[in-house]
Amino acid sequence: MDINKTTIENLKKGESFVDEPGLDEILKGSIEHNKIEFVTDTDYLVKNVDMMLVCVPTPITKDMAPDYSYISDVANKVGKNLRKGQIFVMESSVSPTTIETIIIPILEKVSNLKCNSDFGVCSAPERADPGKIVQNFDTVNRVVGGMDKDVTKLVADVYRAVTKATVMEVSSAGTANAIKLTENIFRDVNIALMNEFSVLYERLGIDTKEVIKGAATKYNFIAHYPGPGVGGPCLPANPYYIIDAASKVNYIPFLIRVAREVNDRMPLHVRDLVIQAYNHVGLALKGSSICVLGVSYKANVRDIQISPALKVIDFLKEMNQTIKIFDPYYAGEPIKDIVVGKTLEESVEGCDGIIVLTDHKEFYDIDFQKFVDKKKNLVLIDSRNIYEPAKLPKGLVYVGVGRPLKTIE
Amino acid sequence: MDINKTTIENLKKGESFVDEPGLDEILKGSIEHNKIEFVTDTDYLVKNVDMMLVCVPTPITKDMAPDYSYISDVANKVGKNLRKGQIFVMESSVSPTTIETIIIPILEKVSNLKCNSDFGVCSAPERADPGKIVQNFDTVNRVVGGMDKDVTKLVADVYRAVTKATVMEVSSAGTANAIKLTENIFRDVNIALMNEFSVLYERLGIDTKEVIKGAATKYNFIAHYPGPGVGGPCLPANPYYIIDAASKVNYIPFLIRVAREVNDRMPLHVRDLVIQAYNHVGLALKGSSICVLGVSYKANVRDIQISPALKVIDFLKEMNQTIKIFDPYYAGEPIKDIVVGKTLEESVEGCDGIIVLTDHKEFYDIDFQKFVDKKKNLVLIDSRNIYEPAKLPKGLVYVGVGRPLKTIE
Repeated sequence: MDINKTTIENLKKGESFVDEPGLDEILKGSIEHNKIEFVTDTDYLVKNVDMMLVCVPTPITKDMAPDYSYISDVANKVGKNLRKGQIFVMESSVSPTTIETIIIPILEKVSNLKCNSDFGVCSAPERADPGKIVQNFDTVNRVVGGMDKDVTKLVADVYRAVTKATVMEVSSAGTANAIKLTENIFRDVNIALMNEFSVLYERLGIDTKEVIKGAATKYNFIAHYPGPGVGGPCLPANPYYIIDAASKVNYIPFLIRVAREVNDRMPLHVRDLVIQAYNHVGLALKGSSICVLGVSYKANVRDIQISPALKVIDFLKEMNQTIKIFDPYYAGEPIKDIVVGKTLEESVEGCDGIIVLTDHKEFYDIDFQKFVDKKKNLVLIDSRNIYEPAKLPKGLVYVGVGRPLKTIE
Repeated sequence: MDINKTTIENLKKGESFVDEPGLDEILKGSIEHNKIEFVTDTDYLVKNVDMMLVCVPTPITKDMAPDYSYISDVANKVGKNLRKGQIFVMESSVSPTTIETIIIPILEKVSNLKCNSDFGVCSAPERADPGKIVQNFDTVNRVVGGMDKDVTKLVADVYRAVTKATVMEVSSAGTANAIKLTENIFRDVNIALMNEFSVLYERLGIDTKEVIKGAATKYNFIAHYPGPGVGGPCLPANPYYIIDAASKVNYIPFLIRVAREVNDRMPLHVRDLVIQAYNHVGLALKGSSICVLGVSYKANVRDIQISPALKVIDFLKEMNQTIKIFDPYYAGEPIKDIVVGKTLEESVEGCDGIIVLTDHKEFYDIDFQKFVDKKKNLVLIDSRNIYEPAKLPKGLVYVGVGRPLKTIE
């Protein structure tokens, strides 16, 4: 069930709106064997199922507060036809208090039924890694926590019936949501830590990528990597759900707040690296040109939600730099009114420099020699540190995030 | 070589001043086979070796600045007799800039020789986990970075000759030191993150230990645990070495700074938990009594350096609570003028509550039933979350760090 009619029409034809390897096969198989129904009508859906898995966006507003409009909306729509014995399962990432303070009150009010005695509510937060969702389905363990032990057990058993991964039952819906946010904030904070080290190590002349490689030889270190910022639907939004829940009990999670700030400032730091590198060859941003490689928020996917690349592009535009873009996942389509080049060569042509903003697999083997041959003092800003400076052609002016500026010799 | 004569005299007798399982056997074997010499005279040492491994303390001063006095001292003493071809290897944790800004200038000035052309300097930061140093010697990989590639290779080969672990050569001494600080600060920041979550989850009625257990079922999460603060010779000091090095290039690593602050505030939070729990049973701290279990900074070692337990004891003393202490590693010896009880029973006797500050293995199997039988409303503050509340006796008032207060039912 989705409220978007085009999405549903396409799904009926076996065409998914997300680009996940393996998904189309599953979709087509389900349609062929008549195992799936696609609907746009919530009333029809609620009347015809015993259990609902709710997967709605939980983004943030422009002023960085949780946007609960999607979940309020779904609770209102479901509540209308909710009947005894039904189970509402939340897959979306919400705060540890959202189920009890927003979802259940709406469901109870609209349905005139009582949670636990009449219907069940449970959290089973998704742990999807976009681009690998199908591949990970049987390997990434799940966590399930309901408002009631029996509901938890029942929902966990449903998940166990479809995944080979371990399904852990936890003591409450709030605990399940706390687990989801804790693990994502763990990532956000550790990326922020590496970003913070990067800015310092650039100034100390140390290569952060080498530092992380060295630290990762220790048994209790897990590598996270610096970059142009953190994007996508989860990491830049999740921390604000905890920050909001904390503010309601008069608590400011300073560390989480600062980590978010560190990551949010990275696009500006990347602009600074562009300025440094262009300045090194005697160019101002105004009047010079740059080719952006990659706009997606992460490698090998076509998704630009909260992508740091968009912020970097804005910052460079503000300084009146001429921008060209190449991203194989968007070839030919405009991003911020810039038509994305169809080939790498056409996009780099005539540019004073190149900036890598997404580490798509297609970028790893670029032959920079031919570009250096055509353009003296070509600049390469490697915001994802995907290249080994020692293997780059002589004469290229190179800088990475956490890697000091140098002319390749 | 050590400047402490008693240490050296005891070592000659085969008695080590540190309590590391397996170390005494190695020491005695070396003495027996005449493979080791113990000296107190630096001049004699420097005149008679080709390579020195320097392991001096790198603590912080009372105002939280790096205390470089030990390394300056050793550089001055070594410099006096330094000769061509010798190699100075730093095992202590220093900042990425310390070798070049402090050690080499002193060595060069005092010896009138030049680094690289005359003598070698290299960093090979220790990665010791106290209590497991011998056990880990062949399994924890090492990182070696010198001021010169040949020195790096030579020193790495010396380490390879004695350890089965992998020895990685990195591009500079500063990089090796950056790796050491990065991995320790990674731990400090992640413990701080779990401490920050703990204080929030207590207020939200969520058990942080369950949250961490749940999050650890995800493939890219690595568990760190909340507690009464972070102690020992490394984690509370290392971040200030980076903060100091950063301040010299006009950079404030806010995230690292805030993480340190979060951890440093935990002893005060633990005092707050004591106040909450005692208040719950109608007691003020003044006039009531508590038994502290554990004073070491970590489990199963006899080391109270910067132990958070000492701070908690100070805070409780300030509020005029009567304190008894039990720590099997200190039985009978005074800590902060309090004689440590010889047995658990004698120490708990007459106390209104018990607070666990170190997770020594001896504390896991304590039978609380007998204490609850003797004392109504007995309070247990479990700052290391080593107990399962469900398995504790009825009537005990329990609170942990990140675990809401409850009376066991």
